[in-house]
Amino acid sequence: MILTVTLNAALDITYRTPALVPHTTHRVSEVVERPGGKGVNVARVLSALGHRTVVTGFAGGRTGDVLRELLGGSGRPADRSGPSPAARPVDALLPIAGATRRTIAVVDASTGDTTQLNEPGPVVSAAEWTGFLSHYDRLLRTGAEAVALCGSLPPGIHVGAYAELIRRARAAGVPVLLDTSGEPLRRGVAARPDLVKPNADELARLTGSREPERATQDARRRGAHAVVASLGPDGLLAVTPDGVWRAAPPDTVRGNPTGAGDSAVAGLLSGLVERLPWPARLSRAVALSTATVLAPAAGEFDARGYAELLPRVTVTGTGGREPE
Amino acid sequence: MILTVTLNAALDITYRTPALVPHTTHRVSEVVERPGGKGVNVARVLSALGHRTVVTGFAGGRTGDVLRELLGGSGRPADRSGPSPAARPVDALLPIAGATRRTIAVVDASTGDTTQLNEPGPVVSAAEWTGFLSHYDRLLRTGAEAVALCGSLPPGIHVGAYAELIRRARAAGVPVLLDTSGEPLRRGVAARPDLVKPNADELARLTGSREPERATQDARRRGAHAVVASLGPDGLLAVTPDGVWRAAPPDTVRGNPTGAGDSAVAGLLSGLVERLPWPARLSRAVALSTATVLAPAAGEFDARGYAELLPRVTVTGTGGREPE
Repeated sequence: MILTVTLNAALDITYRTPALVPHTTHRVSEVVERPGGKGVNVARVLSALGHRTVVTGFAGGRTGDVLRELLGGSGRPADRSGPSPAARPVDALLPIAGATRRTIAVVDASTGDTTQLNEPGPVVSAAEWTGFLSHYDRLLRTGAEAVALCGSLPPGIHVGAYAELIRRARAAGVPVLLDTSGEPLRRGVAARPDLVKPNADELARLTGSREPERATQDARRRGAHAVVASLGPDGLLAVTPDGVWRAAPPDTVRGNPTGAGDSAVAGLLSGLVERLPWPARLSRAVALSTATVLAPAAGEFDARGYAELLPRVTVTGTGGREPE
Repeated sequence: MILTVTLNAALDITYRTPALVPHTTHRVSEVVERPGGKGVNVARVLSALGHRTVVTGFAGGRTGDVLRELLGGSGRPADRSGPSPAARPVDALLPIAGATRRTIAVVDASTGDTTQLNEPGPVVSAAEWTGFLSHYDRLLRTGAEAVALCGSLPPGIHVGAYAELIRRARAAGVPVLLDTSGEPLRRGVAARPDLVKPNADELARLTGSREPERATQDARRRGAHAVVASLGPDGLLAVTPDGVWRAAPPDTVRGNPTGAGDSAVAGLLSGLVERLPWPARLSRAVALSTATVLAPAAGEFDARGYAELLPRVTVTGTGGREPE
């Protein structure tokens, strides 16, 4: 199975309104709730690709209850209607005293433009964090083929948390991918993860350089075994021990980029577990990411669009050499 | 006791952010939740004034659970810390299948300006509405001295709902106040409530006139026994069988007007139950309303400010005559 970690999981709420005008009152015409947080999104895409996936992290309070209900119940997917059990991630979230955060996406009905409001998340106590470390170690040792560490840290968790989770994954011999930002990314990279997937902004903050190739090489020198930078509509740039590649979508697409990065992570992770060569992993990641931008619902990917895009992704680069 | 009805109760959530900029992402620095909906707000102020108050309406889903928890539990206030049981409304909300709505107030930390997002509320079934009518009749007949019908109607409840609740209150001999807008107000007024409290906009929509005195007189002719119009910073205009009065705060105040109308309703209702003469009821309503604008937390009133303002409210008018 593939394990995804979301320390700051969320109940994602989408509101549709005619147009958001600051300092006025809006009647929301449509309310949609779904389980959120980057690792949860990654797990959803991995499940849709047919991979057995386990989500862990924290859930608490009434919002945590709703999150777990929407996720399919605590390991009892057969009780419910909806997607088949195989297509749903297994819930291994750890209960905490604090309440899971909400995120609110306010979508202007006419243009689709989105305003995002993100709650900070629950304060995680030292005892809860210690409890999580044991839980995580057990999950790593019960058949994890790979682990993804995704998203922001909730209040109360130290900035070196991802570095610690990376060291534990490496000790257990489980390949580990890191997708976060800021200081947790900096500390995490130094702990030598197998793969990091920063976007252009995260990469610039980490390395001080806005030149993608230079910044990506720099991120590798800081400790990451491989770096795949997501460059928005330009696709992905991969700097790996096996070579350097660029992968680009066939056309510039318009749509909602929410979740595109999470779909790319799912593509990379599934390719790693299936031992695909790098160009095939990158094609998959770009096709999934583009199919997510094209999907009408934020964070979902369009399965037919994915199948059509996959053979049309362009991958250029040189395999078989170690970049300097 | 005083009964307040909130058919579309809410979990009021306040977010504090640096400034709301449409189509960008915001980290919320502070999250506050409290029980909301106009009738719930009115009950909170009545309780603070020392009146035994019962809140009814509907609550459902996880948001309904949180609402009831914050309200003080289902009639077991002694179990909890917080305000003393005497100062807390009694929860007689009826459970429903649908989930209680949320309202989100996004407050710009620097200016205090507020952007409001209101969910529509749960769909109430015909059976749930029938169940409510029996529940309401029982509450009316267990010592209700007055009843306030407040706020919007949730989806699924017919626009004549308040008219029906007014007829039942009149049949039970309980004085009834209506504070709503649009078609439910129009239908409600025709059912001859003892008092309506529209603001200037609601009054204009009801009568077609923006001239306060004319519009207020017109609202009375449509069926309301007495009309108290709230004119924002200009205070209140009352047209009653006993006379016509204007009541104005001593100074123009700056602050957050959220809940000011609900505090005015609580002032009028408590004055009615205490059989105060109209000028005293209006002074109380204006002082409470102004003390609510002055309070730092939206919808709370500042008790010391209220005590200081009360003797300084100006009431002008002529009692003892029936206006034409």
